[in-house]
Amino acid sequence: MSTDSELRERAARVIPGGMWGHLDASKLPEGYPQFFSRGEGGHVWDANGQRYVDLMCSWGPIVLGHHDPAVDAAARRQADLGDTLNGPAPVLVELAERLVDRIPAADWAMLQKNGTDATTACVTIARAATGRGTILMARGSYHGAAPWCTPVPTGTTEADKANQLRFEYNDVASLQAAADAAGGDLAAILVTAFKHDNVVDQEMPTPEFAAAARAICDRKGAALIVDDVRAGFRIHPGGTWETVGVRPDLSAWSKAIANGHTLAAVTGKDALREAASRVFVTGSFWFSSVAMAAAVATLDELERRDVVGHIASLGQRLRDGLAERARGANVGLRQSGPVAMPLFLFDGDADFAMGRAFCTATLAEGAFLHPRHNMFLCAAHTEADIDAVLAAAEAGFEAVKTLR
Amino acid sequence: MSTDSELRERAARVIPGGMWGHLDASKLPEGYPQFFSRGEGGHVWDANGQRYVDLMCSWGPIVLGHHDPAVDAAARRQADLGDTLNGPAPVLVELAERLVDRIPAADWAMLQKNGTDATTACVTIARAATGRGTILMARGSYHGAAPWCTPVPTGTTEADKANQLRFEYNDVASLQAAADAAGGDLAAILVTAFKHDNVVDQEMPTPEFAAAARAICDRKGAALIVDDVRAGFRIHPGGTWETVGVRPDLSAWSKAIANGHTLAAVTGKDALREAASRVFVTGSFWFSSVAMAAAVATLDELERRDVVGHIASLGQRLRDGLAERARGANVGLRQSGPVAMPLFLFDGDADFAMGRAFCTATLAEGAFLHPRHNMFLCAAHTEADIDAVLAAAEAGFEAVKTLR
Repeated sequence: MSTDSELRERAARVIPGGMWGHLDASKLPEGYPQFFSRGEGGHVWDANGQRYVDLMCSWGPIVLGHHDPAVDAAARRQADLGDTLNGPAPVLVELAERLVDRIPAADWAMLQKNGTDATTACVTIARAATGRGTILMARGSYHGAAPWCTPVPTGTTEADKANQLRFEYNDVASLQAAADAAGGDLAAILVTAFKHDNVVDQEMPTPEFAAAARAICDRKGAALIVDDVRAGFRIHPGGTWETVGVRPDLSAWSKAIANGHTLAAVTGKDALREAASRVFVTGSFWFSSVAMAAAVATLDELERRDVVGHIASLGQRLRDGLAERARGANVGLRQSGPVAMPLFLFDGDADFAMGRAFCTATLAEGAFLHPRHNMFLCAAHTEADIDAVLAAAEAGFEAVKTLR
Repeated sequence: MSTDSELRERAARVIPGGMWGHLDASKLPEGYPQFFSRGEGGHVWDANGQRYVDLMCSWGPIVLGHHDPAVDAAARRQADLGDTLNGPAPVLVELAERLVDRIPAADWAMLQKNGTDATTACVTIARAATGRGTILMARGSYHGAAPWCTPVPTGTTEADKANQLRFEYNDVASLQAAADAAGGDLAAILVTAFKHDNVVDQEMPTPEFAAAARAICDRKGAALIVDDVRAGFRIHPGGTWETVGVRPDLSAWSKAIANGHTLAAVTGKDALREAASRVFVTGSFWFSSVAMAAAVATLDELERRDVVGHIASLGQRLRDGLAERARGANVGLRQSGPVAMPLFLFDGDADFAMGRAFCTATLAEGAFLHPRHNMFLCAAHTEADIDAVLAAAEAGFEAVKTLR
């Protein structure tokens, strides 16, 4: 078994910059591993054999825990039959029915492979339905890494982001102003399930904001698209905007939908069904069956075990425990967003020195946290895991105090 | 177990139009199943239990055969450790090294999930490297289903296809004219490994055309991108353009790379490495390890078993046998492109009545062919399988004769 540093040396030779994308550990504080050897329940092991309580959950996909027995069994049963065939297996129908059954705003479903595939398909369907081009998007929201939505413009053109207008999340006046600017060309409002932008405090959507988005779309005949890729299945089993009583016309899902198997989905209302049947969206593996079988099992386990309730309870325990320890250390710690997807940022930490010091110290104590991105809880986490994180956090706060 | 027609009825309620994308069986001739229950080697079974010799190979991904023991074992070993973790597993490095080792034009590799992800990343890297916008693409070539490349414009905008100029495949003069039109803004020439457009005869690239594409890119400082998503690993182990002695700057791979597991890749030359390290391309499952382990095993088996040679030999047997039977039936049958990826079209069959009749008849005899899209051979196919297809084809030619 190679060590993390040996693997990084080899990777530097055959991968540009040594790694790409959001899992590039060179962008994380000192001490973070790049390579991982295995996962089990709510824990991961890096390539050096170090074990961590894992509060990243693979950046969202792991919602039940690594090697969940029900999901593993369902995936294996389907794999024994076949995965990528000349068409879908019967499990596609089962999964689409399950999504329509569980998600109040879903009259139909389509499947993809990336969250970006799902958000892109939503935009395409909205444009097909309305015959219009303009999409409203919140400034700073992440909807994927395709040229039309990537936060890093390197290698993209101005045309890639044509037909987009911006508003501020949770700001009804700015949303209305953007809708006015779109005039008769408004195809859709595309909005993340809650505000989970990188490096800033999270915000749940306000009921007023959600209602305004719904009303604008209704008045203008545009589609309301909720991007539930990151939050889906962790905040509310039927979709995050159920918490504010607003139902989108189209929803994008991925990450947690199949407990780590590669899958994304679009669900929509009947009014969008005909347009959805006219667009051409596809991929070589969009009909692969193993991920679908995993998704059916994941959705069933989420319901059977009340995972939303479990991770909310653990998230509250974590939030309360961190707040208490921050007070004790006399450190200003801001915790924001839903407790099951925690984000913490330190007051007066513009250069992230405190966040880095905190996370390097907790990492050494066996807690895998992130200094500036929201984290994720899963069903396999226990109160003992949270308490272990809190114990590690005491070392983290000590490290922060030494910076002053 | 539900029948195909029962499944279609249920699908019609929860999936727009009953199915989406390239596997929508309603676009195939009478008799084609929509749902499949399993695959084994070179055979598939539909949801009604009917067995077929499978010449579609899941539209390309199956290159060794369903349930290849080496690939299944490698995937299971990695799955027992972990799939989607907080970062890549060591197998990522192993796979990138394998790609660099096997592909002469590859100095580095990056991984994705869809062929479209790979072609999109190639374009983005080329633009980042050159600081220019214009991409030359052959008229009618398929590079994926994202808004910038989808062949069906429904729901897309004019801006999605901005900065693109067209040429005719294998037509040096038209390629040169497009390059001239791009002037100083030429970022890349994007070209499929061979001409495998829907519904027209296939063409391998001519050496003159490939050399001209290389020369134009060299002269203008643009990137030559070969889209080997569909053809990759079936024509030449090192990339399809090795057959014409031209090495691309960037190559897009997917389909056969992991024998049915969800994976895509971009490989490139050192000159593009720095640009590739600057673009932001990523996805929630782009670091999942099971597909990578499957890809390492697939690449090793491709080499160990000389799959390219095996499927070329079987493809020639199929082509010769079909030609002989077509002559015997006095039917004009055009077979084109590489023998391992056969396409046949009937002379004077503008409405595809002959293609449909042929394929419905062969399907009833247990041979799964396609009336207007190229097909795929795999390592698990045997001479006996090809002979079974040829026997079925006799019923196909009889059906075609009744149309006259």
